[in-house]
Amino acid sequence: MGVMGDAFTQLLIPVAALVGIGFALLQWLLVSKVKVSADSDLNNGYSDRLIEEEEEGIDHEDVAAKCAEIQNAISVGATSFLFTEYRYLSIFMGVFGAIIFLFLGSVKGFSTKSEPCTYNTGSLCKPALANALFSTIAFLLGAMTSVFSGFLGMKIATYANARTTLEARKGVGKAFIVAFRSGAVMGFLLAASGLLVLYVSIHLFSLYYGDDWEGLYESITGYGLGGSSMALFGRVGGGIYTKAADVGADLVGKVERNIPEDDPRNPAVIADNVGDNVGDIAGMGSDLFGSYAEASCAALFVASISSFGISHDYTAMSFPLIISSVGIVVCLGTTLFATDFVEIKNVSEIEPSLKRQLLISTILMTAGIAVVSFFALPSEFTLFNFGSTKTVKNWHLFFCVSIGLWAGLVIGYITEYYTSNAYSPVQDVADSCRTGAATNVIFGLALGYKSVIIPIFAIAIAIYVSFSMAAMYGIAVAALGMLSTIATGLAIDAYGPISDNAGGIAEMAGMSHKIRQRTDALDAAGNTTAAIGKGFAIGSAALVSLALFGAFVSRAGIETVDVLTPKVFIGLIVGAMLPYWFSAMTMKSVGSAALKMVEEVRRQFNTIPGLMEGRAKPDYATCVKISTDASLREMIPPGALVMLTPLIAGTLFGVETLAGVLAGSLVSGVQVAISASNTGGAWDNAKKYIEAGASEHARSLGPKGSDPHKAAVIGDTIGDPLKDTSGPSLNILIKLMAVESLVFAPFFAAHGGLLFKLL
Amino acid sequence: MGVMGDAFTQLLIPVAALVGIGFALLQWLLVSKVKVSADSDLNNGYSDRLIEEEEEGIDHEDVAAKCAEIQNAISVGATSFLFTEYRYLSIFMGVFGAIIFLFLGSVKGFSTKSEPCTYNTGSLCKPALANALFSTIAFLLGAMTSVFSGFLGMKIATYANARTTLEARKGVGKAFIVAFRSGAVMGFLLAASGLLVLYVSIHLFSLYYGDDWEGLYESITGYGLGGSSMALFGRVGGGIYTKAADVGADLVGKVERNIPEDDPRNPAVIADNVGDNVGDIAGMGSDLFGSYAEASCAALFVASISSFGISHDYTAMSFPLIISSVGIVVCLGTTLFATDFVEIKNVSEIEPSLKRQLLISTILMTAGIAVVSFFALPSEFTLFNFGSTKTVKNWHLFFCVSIGLWAGLVIGYITEYYTSNAYSPVQDVADSCRTGAATNVIFGLALGYKSVIIPIFAIAIAIYVSFSMAAMYGIAVAALGMLSTIATGLAIDAYGPISDNAGGIAEMAGMSHKIRQRTDALDAAGNTTAAIGKGFAIGSAALVSLALFGAFVSRAGIETVDVLTPKVFIGLIVGAMLPYWFSAMTMKSVGSAALKMVEEVRRQFNTIPGLMEGRAKPDYATCVKISTDASLREMIPPGALVMLTPLIAGTLFGVETLAGVLAGSLVSGVQVAISASNTGGAWDNAKKYIEAGASEHARSLGPKGSDPHKAAVIGDTIGDPLKDTSGPSLNILIKLMAVESLVFAPFFAAHGGLLFKLL
Repeated sequence: MGVMGDAFTQLLIPVAALVGIGFALLQWLLVSKVKVSADSDLNNGYSDRLIEEEEEGIDHEDVAAKCAEIQNAISVGATSFLFTEYRYLSIFMGVFGAIIFLFLGSVKGFSTKSEPCTYNTGSLCKPALANALFSTIAFLLGAMTSVFSGFLGMKIATYANARTTLEARKGVGKAFIVAFRSGAVMGFLLAASGLLVLYVSIHLFSLYYGDDWEGLYESITGYGLGGSSMALFGRVGGGIYTKAADVGADLVGKVERNIPEDDPRNPAVIADNVGDNVGDIAGMGSDLFGSYAEASCAALFVASISSFGISHDYTAMSFPLIISSVGIVVCLGTTLFATDFVEIKNVSEIEPSLKRQLLISTILMTAGIAVVSFFALPSEFTLFNFGSTKTVKNWHLFFCVSIGLWAGLVIGYITEYYTSNAYSPVQDVADSCRTGAATNVIFGLALGYKSVIIPIFAIAIAIYVSFSMAAMYGIAVAALGMLSTIATGLAIDAYGPISDNAGGIAEMAGMSHKIRQRTDALDAAGNTTAAIGKGFAIGSAALVSLALFGAFVSRAGIETVDVLTPKVFIGLIVGAMLPYWFSAMTMKSVGSAALKMVEEVRRQFNTIPGLMEGRAKPDYATCVKISTDASLREMIPPGALVMLTPLIAGTLFGVETLAGVLAGSLVSGVQVAISASNTGGAWDNAKKYIEAGASEHARSLGPKGSDPHKAAVIGDTIGDPLKDTSGPSLNILIKLMAVESLVFAPFFAAHGGLLFKLL
Repeated sequence: MGVMGDAFTQLLIPVAALVGIGFALLQWLLVSKVKVSADSDLNNGYSDRLIEEEEEGIDHEDVAAKCAEIQNAISVGATSFLFTEYRYLSIFMGVFGAIIFLFLGSVKGFSTKSEPCTYNTGSLCKPALANALFSTIAFLLGAMTSVFSGFLGMKIATYANARTTLEARKGVGKAFIVAFRSGAVMGFLLAASGLLVLYVSIHLFSLYYGDDWEGLYESITGYGLGGSSMALFGRVGGGIYTKAADVGADLVGKVERNIPEDDPRNPAVIADNVGDNVGDIAGMGSDLFGSYAEASCAALFVASISSFGISHDYTAMSFPLIISSVGIVVCLGTTLFATDFVEIKNVSEIEPSLKRQLLISTILMTAGIAVVSFFALPSEFTLFNFGSTKTVKNWHLFFCVSIGLWAGLVIGYITEYYTSNAYSPVQDVADSCRTGAATNVIFGLALGYKSVIIPIFAIAIAIYVSFSMAAMYGIAVAALGMLSTIATGLAIDAYGPISDNAGGIAEMAGMSHKIRQRTDALDAAGNTTAAIGKGFAIGSAALVSLALFGAFVSRAGIETVDVLTPKVFIGLIVGAMLPYWFSAMTMKSVGSAALKMVEEVRRQFNTIPGLMEGRAKPDYATCVKISTDASLREMIPPGALVMLTPLIAGTLFGVETLAGVLAGSLVSGVQVAISASNTGGAWDNAKKYIEAGASEHARSLGPKGSDPHKAAVIGDTIGDPLKDTSGPSLNILIKLMAVESLVFAPFFAAHGGLLFKLL
């Protein structure tokens, strides 16, 4: 037993979760002090700065009213889309919940008799039917928490965007704080509520399960499946929504009509801004929540069949949850560095400040991990290792968690290097625009491929160390280590689309050039942090899905996954193909939806008199409808591919082939995902580099409208579906197939491999 | 023992090889009857058709003289490049030969004492030092045969290109026959000389080895390594050469100056045409020769440690060579269908005729395989299967070889479907050009990703069947099955660049529009067959490298490659990353070299007075020099990556990690390679679809110079390095790392894994 008592653990976890929620609400309160309204009484205390705007002849009241109006349109559009999406998803949840119940119930023929435990030999465990029922409940809980996380994130983001715009009038520092605080609201709410729901579920389930921890934590894995399957549809649906609108808006607006991005005359502009919130915010929220839920479930499951579970050491068993609790406290301290301890006075300080967040949280968290590893864990214990056991010391786990955490930092920094226009890779891509779009695309693709190298080595080292020290449990806690600073990661990440929207609102409200420059600077940093966020999401997905893979293999009772057997090898090569199939679907969907959007936008420009001159209003609603319909329709085939593959592979070909599929899709998908995200991010920032014209070199490529700039815009448009639809969805593909296999493992082990049995 | 006697086998193999060589020479003789000369006496018998040209005011003598001059320039450029390249490669061969000798010699400390055999227990085998020496000799033989194959192919192609142009005056059918015959010369020479050198080497080596077949066939694996390492440099160097010239020529010529492709005023035009010959012809020749040599070596090695080798059954042992011998005879018959039995009268018959070649050769070969499987093999025998043995019947091997053969056909046909503009996928890509280059690129990438699905299933089924039936030997003979029709495959494949060059010569010689239309039709079919050829190359590479992987694992004495161990898993994920690293290098190289080419071409247009008006000649030589220098310099880093990875992984991390690396790079690389080749092929043909304007739909996108056409040209340019540099080089990456590991396996097994030993 560790030093820390069970009573303390029982207290620590919910208290940390509640502190996180409280902190999130406090941040919200601070953000809400910025008033968005046309009411002239509420001048937000910047009457002293009104001179500047008056000089440019812009009426401040009018501007605030316009901001309020636009914010409202975005919020209504996003809410209505998410409600429609969730209506579809509730059908899916019902159907898939039933499948889980039926498949798992059938393992022992729906028997209600208790069975001898598999790992805790000598004890009696609850019947398979109970596991089926509780897995289904856990699935639904996970799904609902995921939906709640995504929805809340979107609400906060649409609440904060106009406030960021208005604060930009006071200076870049103030605007930064609003955007960052709003990101923090999302980060903390998500991390804390994920932890709380998991904690409460475990306690409620244990009312039935009692001492049967094996069954309890088997059922809890459904939580991860629920979280991740919602995340898949959120990411894919949101990704198609946002990019159909974005690509469609850009192709007609920027390329054909030569009007600026986010110009209110563009009929697709509202859909574009709605898309940022449903795709980048709600989708990313669900995604990282899914990673977090899955990593916790994988760690808990492996722990439950190891000495922690068998000897019923509650505190050690709760180690994964304790790490997350400490993470919330650490992130809370870290956030203050961005919002209170240091003030941003200059646009050039934004990116370093965001990067510093990562470093501070990583250093603080390392100390936190050391503390909990030594106090919560016994000094020596045994872990389950594919049929055998492995003796592990508590400082081994300290290394496992820490190496995951630091690998995350490395991935974040490398992603920044390859996607920020402060460094040579993006500048080289920008330079290649001199010879046109073709060289821009060739250089951009090469950059994405190259950016895979160091993250993969970082992941490989993290895997090697944690795997060697503590088998699959080591991998699971390494993933949790990477995700322990999720609150900060999400804050940084959500900051991006909020700033992007803020810029859009400034443009649409007709605010002065200076304001737009400030929001652009926030947005450029946001592009990079979005790429960093994706890097984290992918890195953690790789570790999480390996941990889930290990848990699946343990649960399915396989002891080796030997590449030198035909069953495994064909799984491996087909699994490695799946990310391509999936990407083909999502990219084609974005392309087709964008073509429809282009036609509609062209139609409106051609048929609405006075639109180009700004005398008539475009029909925003039709564009919103096109994005909504396309995303809901097109998310089904890729979703089905991911959800059905494990079921088909497991049922027809059995657990060995399925294990091959999981390993193949993991090692292949992570490469496709990283390269797609970074290529897209680099193109976006290469374009911004030319537009900003901050250096001699950048000016030689510009200004806006020059041939190199046009080439850069083409690259940016190609990158959109890569970085915001297919790339980030691939994380979910690899995680989701693994967690689904884990949940269905008893069924596949009992009834799987039909085809081979027939032959 | 099988029915077929050893004496008959001894005769069959060399006779088949000599028949192949004789047939190739005969085809050459037929091609050489078309005279290329300015001499007016030699009017090639088409004086009756001169009227058409005279009507257009083109002097026939002048045209022939120009053709001869251009052909000479291309031939001189190609020969000079290859000689320079081979001079560099001879240094590499010397150094790497020394490494092989030292590494393998050190396995038993350079002892000259005989050792007990590993598999043929109870017998004495030759010392490790002898194996080191003979492996080095085999390596050098393989390297020289590969160089010879590539060089000869280039010579034939540059001999045939102008002849095809001149024959195009008589009609498309005549031109087709010249181009196809020339391709056949290359195909048959390569297949036959590869077989002959291997046969002779085995017999010469056996003078020393006598009854020690284990050592004999171990050493022979060096032949595959030699063949493939030359192929790597040939492909990468040639690929960079051709695409730097092509992209550079297009970016200035087509996009900026609006002059046609292959216009003689373009300074890079000769470099471009030289590139087709050194990249597509010499590179492809070396590549497929490498596949063939490796598949044979892998099969022979596994056979030597199975019952064939241990019981010294010469005919059964030679089964891989017998398959290739039958393949030569079958292809000989198949060729006659294209050149003698059926005459092409219309451009629309070209593609079906080429496709028919694949079908005919596959059907005939299936019968051939049945015959040799029943006559050459004992009805039952045992095969080595990772430490155990497996009992196999002769009809099992029939299925193994046949399924490889038919999987190749499926891959070929699917590739054609996705890259020919006769079908909807390419037409959809062309259609997406309506909304610009960005959607073209998005649709093209999605097409490439999608085109991976069926080939991977075909490969997976072939692997499953052959692996289950006859373990790794089954995989090796399946690969040989796919390659058994290599003579026809290469003929079809070489036909493409010959036609491409013929079109270029027609343009440069100022021949009439009608002639150019005919060569364009030949060329469009050639684009598709080039893609089919790449599909074959990749499919066979996947099977070959799996077979080599199995042989490596057997030789290294590993019995399982378990994904659930950290050593293997990190190998797997890093291996899956290598194709990206490699592609990043090659694409960036093409991009940088193209930028240099663009600058030079622009400089010439700007500084040479009268160049645009056709009054002055451009300086072709400088462009040739840029391509040469770039390709020789830039082929070193990717070459080093591929050659050093197995050495570093094996020496530092040991055989398990290396096995993981091989499996990872195989399952990931095959996807990247297929999608890159097909995306590039589709873009090229989408552009040709718009240019040809053969349908209502195509005309609505054109004509040349329209916005959709410009967007299509951008896609085509991006596709160039994908389809001709990085994509096809990846085959070699996965094969070469596997064969290198196989050759060095005894060293890694004895001294590898230093890093883990230290820790």
